[in-house]
Amino acid sequence: MTAMTMNQRVHFITVATGDLDAIRGFYLDGLGWSAVLDVPDEIIFFQVAPGVLLGFFHADKFRADAGAGAATGTPVATAPGGFNLSHNVESPAAVDGVMSAAADAGARIVKPAQRGAFGGIYHGMFADPNGMVWEVAHNPNWRIDDDGTVHLGA
Amino acid sequence: MTAMTMNQRVHFITVATGDLDAIRGFYLDGLGWSAVLDVPDEIIFFQVAPGVLLGFFHADKFRADAGAGAATGTPVATAPGGFNLSHNVESPAAVDGVMSAAADAGARIVKPAQRGAFGGIYHGMFADPNGMVWEVAHNPNWRIDDDGTVHLGA
Repeated sequence: MTAMTMNQRVHFITVATGDLDAIRGFYLDGLGWSAVLDVPDEIIFFQVAPGVLLGFFHADKFRADAGAGAATGTPVATAPGGFNLSHNVESPAAVDGVMSAAADAGARIVKPAQRGAFGGIYHGMFADPNGMVWEVAHNPNWRIDDDGTVHLGA
Repeated sequence: MTAMTMNQRVHFITVATGDLDAIRGFYLDGLGWSAVLDVPDEIIFFQVAPGVLLGFFHADKFRADAGAGAATGTPVATAPGGFNLSHNVESPAAVDGVMSAAADAGARIVKPAQRGAFGGIYHGMFADPNGMVWEVAHNPNWRIDDDGTVHLGA
């Protein structure tokens, strides 16, 4: 029908949350992040990569936004499951440091920092107040070129 | 304990999937995307922004990777809920075109393209074979500077 395709590009990562104030407390106050846009009782956006925003969207509005389709098979949970976000750092010591900083900010430790089962990494995992899991990792087989190209593998 | 904090940065978006072959069929064959790394029965990675990879990780290994913490309160579902990824395009017509291309590739339409309730956008939503929801949107109040800085709002 159309010759159009979908470019290989993510612009927003949007997460439903039941408690936007807890999200603000953790990311703004706990971690010291800055918001691109913060709409009370609705949504808060953080820039997390070139051209990419991470948004925490009030769960009622997230569901409303998904529309009727959400009621017919699309899972629209408040506490997200089945995915995580990763934050890579330059050394195992930096993994320990970031995990401590997250715990100090109120994160729940899901997996204490340790050698990982895959890829020769050293990593830990924590959950934010919404239950969303962040992996904090040092991955010796990962690098980003100056132009943003990512390389993986030995 | 430490002066370290966590930088405002996402490097990986990792999604658990029960059917990696269906994911390959959709993204590689259906949409024509290219993988950075494709490990049979384990994981496939796509670059989706400067410095950012989207990985689909076999659900059994995703759970194993989360470790004991996953058994004590962390939701680790196979079909992800409570979040979506957005792909922005330059016009309402391009939203229609990408939604058609996704449907042709085997996506399930969750919300047909229409004027959105928030932000003056025109958008649609589809689910990939894993149930993960993509929003395809034209947002007149969103732009990216050449350096990757994102602006939102009128």
